[in-house]
Parts: sequence; structure tokens; C-alpha cells
Amino acid sequence: MACRHEDSTSSEMRHDWLADRWVIIAPQRTCRPNDFVSRPPDAVDNPDCPFCLGHEAHTPEAVACYGKKRATNSANWSVRVVPNKFPAVNAAFQRAGVLASGESEPPVQGTEFSAAGDLEAIDLFRKHLLTGAHEVIVECPTHLQSISQLDRETMQLVFTAYRDRLHFWLDQQELAYAVVFKNVGMDAGASLYHSHSQLIATDLIPTDVERAVQRMAMFVEKQSQCLFCRMAEDELEQGVRIVEHTPDFIAFCPFASRLPSMVTIIPKRHQSAFQLLEHVELEQLSWLTHRLVRRLERCYPDAAYNFIIHTAPFHYRDSNCFHWRLELFPRITKVAGFEWGSDCYINPLSPEHAAKALRNAGV
Amino acid sequence: MACRHEDSTSSEMRHDWLADRWVIIAPQRTCRPNDFVSRPPDAVDNPDCPFCLGHEAHTPEAVACYGKKRATNSANWSVRVVPNKFPAVNAAFQRAGVLASGESEPPVQGTEFSAAGDLEAIDLFRKHLLTGAHEVIVECPTHLQSISQLDRETMQLVFTAYRDRLHFWLDQQELAYAVVFKNVGMDAGASLYHSHSQLIATDLIPTDVERAVQRMAMFVEKQSQCLFCRMAEDELEQGVRIVEHTPDFIAFCPFASRLPSMVTIIPKRHQSAFQLLEHVELEQLSWLTHRLVRRLERCYPDAAYNFIIHTAPFHYRDSNCFHWRLELFPRITKVAGFEWGSDCYINPLSPEHAAKALRNAGV
Repeated sequence: MACRHEDSTSSEMRHDWLADRWVIIAPQRTCRPNDFVSRPPDAVDNPDCPFCLGHEAHTPEAVACYGKKRATNSANWSVRVVPNKFPAVNAAFQRAGVLASGESEPPVQGTEFSAAGDLEAIDLFRKHLLTGAHEVIVECPTHLQSISQLDRETMQLVFTAYRDRLHFWLDQQELAYAVVFKNVGMDAGASLYHSHSQLIATDLIPTDVERAVQRMAMFVEKQSQCLFCRMAEDELEQGVRIVEHTPDFIAFCPFASRLPSMVTIIPKRHQSAFQLLEHVELEQLSWLTHRLVRRLERCYPDAAYNFIIHTAPFHYRDSNCFHWRLELFPRITKVAGFEWGSDCYINPLSPEHAAKALRNAGV
Repeated sequence: MACRHEDSTSSEMRHDWLADRWVIIAPQRTCRPNDFVSRPPDAVDNPDCPFCLGHEAHTPEAVACYGKKRATNSANWSVRVVPNKFPAVNAAFQRAGVLASGESEPPVQGTEFSAAGDLEAIDLFRKHLLTGAHEVIVECPTHLQSISQLDRETMQLVFTAYRDRLHFWLDQQELAYAVVFKNVGMDAGASLYHSHSQLIATDLIPTDVERAVQRMAMFVEKQSQCLFCRMAEDELEQGVRIVEHTPDFIAFCPFASRLPSMVTIIPKRHQSAFQLLEHVELEQLSWLTHRLVRRLERCYPDAAYNFIIHTAPFHYRDSNCFHWRLELFPRITKVAGFEWGSDCYINPLSPEHAAKALRNAGV
């Protein structure tokens, strides 16, 4: 980033109440000299791109297709969902077979995975054969990279696919949690150029997510209101961190952002899970996300970015505590040793300045 | 990374007991296709490098120098410690002045920062004027990048500087915690090429570190033994994750490594704080670290890397629970959306395979 002179030159710590984590907002750090030339990596021209129209046979068979006609593996799809060919988890439906091979021990019971449930048994070499699903949502038949290049109708189909797939996995008794995420560009962890998102569903809830659930429950207990319902009120009242809002959603740069120009989108009304979205909300949200990505790309051309949909673990789907959210962030800084060592992030751009720049980026 | 075919093709979760965090070891993920060309960034030739001999006036005045003669800012230094010109924290010794300007409220009391102490007050917009120190340890007068290019004597001076500076800041009543870390290469978060490390001392303990302290105390309470003392015994007995060991130290790839080829070094005897190291241990450790960096560079030429020294927060310096450690890791993978969303890392290289490759990398 270029050297930005914000009003203050002192470092300020801010507390992320949900994560119970401090971040350091240090505007003066942007003035550091830099010996390195950062270039966006070259994308290789890939005539065999497995996500392009006509190459459907390069992926496992589609589990869902969206478009003019809902014909699986036909040439008429706009959005296509396929199992990941290189999954990070062992397929839920194949679990019995994997276990039969004797390569690993059977999974321990679900209750043992929670942060609180972990206090009793101490085992420094504890393993678990991870069961779940890992799917890819291919978002267009042509070789585009960013969702900012998609049209309004396709955006809505993409978000419909997210909702449908979350619904589908929610019904599998053995699974506990799912997350939808998007990596665009190498610096955001993408290995393929063609626009796609991913869904990972697992039979356990990551400790960090379990901890967030507990914090949200604690907030409701003490304040008789959901954490993000309160946050929506406070952010709208203060205004300085709002990027944009629609009748049903609010997009803001969180008070204790770990990374520069991080944006959170939440529904204004309490809603625990993404899959509860109604049609009209889905339409609004998909276009708001599109607009926000365009704003980011105005501020940081060619920047890699991620987004993540944090939705309630399946057991908490009707919770009055959990409020789903979408987090969007460009990957323009590197995570250095201090952050790895302390989990305390140094962010050189205040959320207030980030929000202002994003608001001013015409779309 | 090239596609590595490990024995197993199923994903295995492993539990990091200290962090209470699951990681996913997924060897099959290395076989993914890749559309991006990853190149190490160009280092700009910098005739004005502030860390080179003769440019001492480009940095704040040195607070310590090491070499043939201990002359501050003379041409005889090998290692030089200076305040960071772009600090992430507000200087401890200037705090009164900063507060007088009225830019921010006075810091809240130290006890309010702990994870446990946070339960009472709920404030979604909590701030703190961070006080502490941010220093740079310049590790050679010539324009070298990696510590693998330093000689044995200089390595020892570098580690002596770490120890001395930790000692110095430990004596400042208002500070609570310090961490020494190194960023080499742009992907590891470095902004300058010239070999250097950093020390950040703060008046509060990051929540994650406080949590680790509590977990170490819990382990001792339940097992009547320090966590890392036990781990040293277990790792030496199992052998498969050991990279190298010396009379006083053991270097191993942790069972639940978040990143590929992560290496942890710990003292075999219980020692809570890095600054307690004796001269002969410092000599051994500095050379072991040098050897491990050379091993990493054999496996991943040109890779960026970090190391971090996790030492006891000042209040726990004589603790029978806290055991200091040095974590070293190359930055060869990217943190993607799933990891950001769940704090659950997908590591495509098992620690056992990583340790074997590092052992086999002759130095």
C-alpha cells in the first residue's frame, strides 16, 4: 500500500469481542520502505481448464447444475457444483469403506471435539479420520476469474447454489458444520484461475467456531440481545464504518479488523443460518456482494481476495444467539512472524479510513 | 510443492493440544493442478539500505552493538540493535507525552486483558493505547538476506542480542510480554531485504498467549509434568518427527503442524524463558537454528521463512509450566478462505514426511 497519513500516528489496540482477540491498528506502518517488488502472479493460459464449458468430463460428475435448463453436465449450465477432485476431507458416503481398509482408527464421538469437552482427556497425539464433503461451485462456463465479471442473474444462481448445498449437507445426520468460501488469485490460496467457490462440510466443529458460538451465547445471556443484531444497530448509528446498506443487509468494516479493508455483511434481522435466506434476500445479498467486490477492485486493482460465509453449525441452526455473516477481504498484506506468534494482527489501515475509501469507490 | 504421494490418501485430523486446535493433514492435496506461476519476488537493489554499514545515520541511534569492539554506531559492529523507525507500538518511555496529547484514553488495567478476566464487561468498541517497544536487530553489516549466510560467531552474537534485549525489557515494570521474531522474504512479511529480526514488547499479553499459558498450567496440574518436557520425551522415543538434536536441544516437526515443514526447537531441560539460556546453550542453539535454516533452504530454495521465539510472559518467567520454544517455518503455501474462516489449517505435508526430508537434506 502507498503511505497513507491518517490523522493519528499512534498505535491503537482494538478488541474483537467475538474472537476475544486484540488487533493493533498502526497507520504509521504504511510509511515503511520496501525492498521488494510485489507483482500479481501470472495466470497460466490453461486450455484444459477443468471448469470451462466442454470440459465437464475432467471433473467428477456434477451434483447440481443451474442455468437456463437444469440439465446435469449439459452445455446449458451457468453454475455447476461438483465434488472436489482433491478433497481435504474423506467423503461422508464412503466412510465405511475407508474405515474397512484399517488405515486409521474410527472417529471418536462428536462431543469430544468441543473446546469445553476437551478438558478431561489429555492425549498429545490425538487423531481423527475426518469425514465430510468438499465441493466446488463452478460459477461460469467461460474462463473468468472474479465474480465482478458475472452478471446479476448468474450471481444469484451462485448464491442459490450455496444455499441449496448447505441445505443438502445439513440433512446428513453425521455432519456437524459447513463453511462456504471463495479464494480468488494465488495470494488468496487459489490454485485454479476460473471463478469458483468451495463448500467444506465436516463431522466436527472447528474449535474456533465452537468458541465463537459460546461467545455469542454469552452475549445474549448478558445483554438479552444477539451480538450482531446489536452490532448492526451500533454501526448504523455511528455510521463511520458503514460501506453500504440495503433494506435487509448492512456491509461495514469491522471495528477490530485484522486485515486492511475487511468487510462484513450481515442481515439486519436476526437470522442464524445462511440457508434460511428467502428468495428476495438472496437476490439482494448476491448483488450487494458483487458491488462490494467491485469496490475492492477499484481500491486494489488485481488484488487477490477471499470471502467466507460463517453460518451456524447444524446443531445451532435455530439459535437465537448465532447470526450468520459473510466476510470479504483483499489479500494485500502478508501475515508476518509477530502475527503467527501472538495471533495479534497489525493492521496498517483503520477500518474508518477503509470504509471511507470503499464508499468513495464508485461502482 | 510437487505432487508427493505419501502412503495414505485419506485426510487425517490431528489435535494440537496446546492451542486446542485441529489441523487437517491432507497429502492428496499436493496433487492439485495449478494455474499460477509462483515466483520469488524481486529484491530491489537498495544503495540506501538503512541496515548496511555506513548508513547508521538512517536509523534511530543504536541501543546496543555487538562485534569486535562494542562501539555504538562505529564501523566495528557485527550486530546492531535499533528502535524500529516505524513502530507497531507506542514507545513505553514516551507514554506520558502521548497521553498528554489527548488522542486516546489511558490504558485500562493489565488484568482486564486476560481471556478469563474479560467475561464481566462487554464493550464492543474497546480500545487501548498500546505501550511497549519495537526494536530491530540488524544481523550483519553487509547486504545479506538469510541467517544461513552468517558465520558461527555472528549467529551467536545475534542470539546474544535477543537474550540481552529480552532481559532489558523484562525489567520495565509496565511491560508484560515480549516476542522475538524474524521475517525473511516478502512472503514472510519482510519489507526490507537485509537480514534482521525484531522484538516487540507490550504492556498486555495477547489473548492467544494467555490461553497457551493456561493450557500449560492445566497440563502440569493434571499430569504433574511440563507439557514440553513430556513432548521432548515422547518425540525422542517415537523418533519419526525428529529432525536433529544436540545435547541440550531437540528440533522436531510438531505432530499437528499447521504449515508444511514447520520445525519446533525446545530445550530438553525445563526452561521457562529464553533469557535464562546460559552461554554454552546459546552457542549450541544459535548453530542448531543455522543448520535448520540451511536444511529448509535445501528443501525449498529461495523460500521465504519466519521464526518466532515464544518465551514466558514476564509474570511467568519462573514458571514450572511455561517452556519456551522457537518455531521455524517456510512460507510455501498460502492461507486460504477455509483457514481464515475456521482457524483449522489444511497441511498437505505430514510432519513425519517433512522431518524425513529435512533430516535427509545434508548441511
